[in-house]
Amino acid sequence: MMAPELLPPVRVLMGPGPSDIHPRVLDALGRGTVGHLDPYYLKIMDDLQQMLRALFRTENRMTFAVSGTGSAGMEAAVVNLLEPGDSMVVCVNGVFGGRMADVAQRAGARVTQVERPWGEVFTPQDLVEVLERVRPKVVGIVMAETSTGAWQPLEAISQVVHDAGALLLVDAVTSLGGVPVEVDAWKIDVIYSGTQKCLSCPPGLAPVSFNQRALDTIQARKSKVQSWYLDVSLLASYWGQERVYHHTGPINMSYALYEALRVIHEEGLEACWARHARNHRALKAGLAAIGIDYAAQEGHQLPMLNAVRIPQGVDDAKVRTGLLQRFGIEIGGGLGAFKGKVWRVGLMGYGARPANVLLFLSALEQLLGEQDYRFQSGAAIAAANASYLGDKS
Amino acid sequence: MMAPELLPPVRVLMGPGPSDIHPRVLDALGRGTVGHLDPYYLKIMDDLQQMLRALFRTENRMTFAVSGTGSAGMEAAVVNLLEPGDSMVVCVNGVFGGRMADVAQRAGARVTQVERPWGEVFTPQDLVEVLERVRPKVVGIVMAETSTGAWQPLEAISQVVHDAGALLLVDAVTSLGGVPVEVDAWKIDVIYSGTQKCLSCPPGLAPVSFNQRALDTIQARKSKVQSWYLDVSLLASYWGQERVYHHTGPINMSYALYEALRVIHEEGLEACWARHARNHRALKAGLAAIGIDYAAQEGHQLPMLNAVRIPQGVDDAKVRTGLLQRFGIEIGGGLGAFKGKVWRVGLMGYGARPANVLLFLSALEQLLGEQDYRFQSGAAIAAANASYLGDKS
Repeated sequence: MMAPELLPPVRVLMGPGPSDIHPRVLDALGRGTVGHLDPYYLKIMDDLQQMLRALFRTENRMTFAVSGTGSAGMEAAVVNLLEPGDSMVVCVNGVFGGRMADVAQRAGARVTQVERPWGEVFTPQDLVEVLERVRPKVVGIVMAETSTGAWQPLEAISQVVHDAGALLLVDAVTSLGGVPVEVDAWKIDVIYSGTQKCLSCPPGLAPVSFNQRALDTIQARKSKVQSWYLDVSLLASYWGQERVYHHTGPINMSYALYEALRVIHEEGLEACWARHARNHRALKAGLAAIGIDYAAQEGHQLPMLNAVRIPQGVDDAKVRTGLLQRFGIEIGGGLGAFKGKVWRVGLMGYGARPANVLLFLSALEQLLGEQDYRFQSGAAIAAANASYLGDKS
Repeated sequence: MMAPELLPPVRVLMGPGPSDIHPRVLDALGRGTVGHLDPYYLKIMDDLQQMLRALFRTENRMTFAVSGTGSAGMEAAVVNLLEPGDSMVVCVNGVFGGRMADVAQRAGARVTQVERPWGEVFTPQDLVEVLERVRPKVVGIVMAETSTGAWQPLEAISQVVHDAGALLLVDAVTSLGGVPVEVDAWKIDVIYSGTQKCLSCPPGLAPVSFNQRALDTIQARKSKVQSWYLDVSLLASYWGQERVYHHTGPINMSYALYEALRVIHEEGLEACWARHARNHRALKAGLAAIGIDYAAQEGHQLPMLNAVRIPQGVDDAKVRTGLLQRFGIEIGGGLGAFKGKVWRVGLMGYGARPANVLLFLSALEQLLGEQDYRFQSGAAIAAANASYLGDKS
C-alpha cells in the first residue's frame, strides 16, 4: 500500500478556519521534537501559559492548551464544570451554541436552551427570566458565532449571570486574538478557544482558562469528571509545578502555538485587534459597493468572520469552486439554516491583511462578472481602497 | 509579555515515547496548511485510512485517526463501546491497564480488574473464571505495557473473550509498527494506538480501528456516547463519503502521520518488525554483558520498549541526567511500582537503529564506569556488535 508524495496545493485560507498560517509558525512546527518531560519542554509549557494569560487578559493560574481542537476545548470546559443532574442554560443563535447544548446533555446536565434568530445576539434581558426560573449552575454563550458572524457583547451578560449565582462559560474559538477578550475584567469563569482562527496556527490545540471560582466548583464535585483525558484536576498536576505525567503532550503543535503567540505579542494585542478591524472595514466597503450585505445584525458584525448573503441568482457552488480552483482562495459556505444562502469570509490572524482583501474582492468581481454583468465595474476594489485610504485608526 | 526564540535542543529520543522523528516527517509537518474540507485534504484522509488499514492489517472501514494523543484513542474506544451500567473486564499488569479501568469507570461501566504482577503477561486461563462469572460486554487488554516492557500475546486471549460473547478492546499504543499487530486475523474488535511510538511521528494523533461487530454494538446503544468530540458515529460521517463537518481536523499533524505511514510502507511492515527485533537483540546482548536484566518476564519482552533493572548501587537520576546533558539522550525512568528501579529504553520506529543502540550503550558504559569500575570494560559494545554480526534475520 503506497500513497503519493505529500504535495499540498498553495491556498489562501479565507474561510471560517483554518486560516492562513504565519510562515514562522509553519517553520516552528518542524523543529526537532523533545520529550514531554524534557526540561526544555517544561520551560516551553511555562512560557506558553504566560503568553496565553496575556492573550486572555487574565491572571488565572489554570490557563493552558488542551491537547485537541477547539471542540475538545468546549468539551473540557463543559464536562469539568457539570455533573449529572446539574442545570445549564445555553444561548443558541447558531451552530456552535447548539453544539454546546449537545455536549452538556451528553454530560448528563439538564439543559435549557435560550434562542435568538441566527445572526442576532443576546441582551441581558433575554436571560433574566430564564435565570430566575432555572437557577442554573452554568450559563454558556458563544462570543463569535462562526456560523453567522454575530459578535456577542459579554460584559452586561456576565453581570446578570453572576447576579443569578451562575458561572459564565464562554466560547472564544473565533474571537480570541481578533477582538478584545477580557477574561478578568469581564469576570468570565471558564473560556476556551482554538489555534486555527486568529492565532495564525494550524488546528490541533485548544487554549483554555479556568478562574478560581471554576476550580473551586470542580474541587467540590461529588463525581469524577467523565473524561479522563480532559480532567482539569489531573491536567493541573502536569501543567503545574508537580509535573505529574498525564498524557504525552503534542510537542510540535505546542511549538507552533508558542511561535504563534510570540508573533501576536510582538505585534501587540491592541494593534492586532485594530488590524482585524481595519481590514474588515475595507472588505465590508468593497462588498457593499457591489450590493452584498452581512447576515449578522448591524453593529454586531465580527471583523474576522464576515458572513455575507449570496446575491440573488448567483450560483453558490460555482463561485466557491472558481475561487478555489482558479485563485487558490478558500472561503466557507453556509452551515445549517444558512446553507446555500451565505458565504463566510475569514480575515483571521495572518490572513487579516490588505493583500487578502484585495485578492478576494478582485477574484470575486471576476467570477460574479461572468454570471452577471452588474459585477464588472471594479467598484468593490475602488471602495476597499478608499476605505484603507480614509482609515485613520 | 515575550518569550525567547524557539530553539529546542537536539535530542536522541530513546525513552518510552515520543521517539526519534523521521526527518521526512518533520519536513511534512511544516507544509502549507489547506482547509479541512479541501478536496486535497479529503484525498489525504482517504489515503491515511488506506495506509492505516494496511498497518493494522484490517479491512475495517472505520479505521481513522482520532484528533488527540494515544490516551484520547483509549477514551474513544472505551466510551463508544460502553454505556452506563455495562460491564467491562480490564486486564491490569501496569500503568496503562489501570488507566483503561479508570476511563471505563468514568464512563459509568461496572469494571472488574484482573491483575498480574508488573512485568508478567496474561494467559487465557487467567480470564476464564472471571468471564464466566461477570459475562462482560467488553474485555480490555494492553498489548505492549509501556510501564513494564511486557509483550502480551493476543490470539488465545481473543478466543476465550469471544467464546464468552464479549468484545475485545486492545491497547496497541506502543506495539503498532514495532511488532506484528493482526487486527483481522486475531479478531480484535476495537484497537487504538498513538503516533509517537513506532510510527516515527510526533504525538498528537491516535490511530483507531473498529470492526463491524463493534459498530453494530455502537449502533444499538440506548444512550448517546458521552463524548461529542469522540463520538464514532459522528466521526464516521466526516471520514466517510458524506463528509459532514464535525470538528476541524488537525491538518498538519495529519500530514505528519501521512508521511510517517509512507515511510513505514516503503520499508515494508515485515522488514520494519525485523529491524525492531534485530536492534532489540543487540541492545539486550549489550546490557546482559554488563549484568543488566529485563523487568518483563523472559519470552515476553518487547523489542521497542526495553524496561531494565537499574543495577544495585547505581544512582538513577545521575545516570539519566548524564545521558541527557552530556549526550542528548533521553531514556525513561520507572513509573508507579517501578519508580527508581527501572529504566525504560525505547527503540521505536526511526529510533530503532544500530547508531542509537551503540551510542546508548557506550554512553551508559562511560557514565556507569564513573560510578563503578566494573562497567569500564567495553563489554556492552563488544556484545552488541557480536549480536549484529551473528544476526542472520
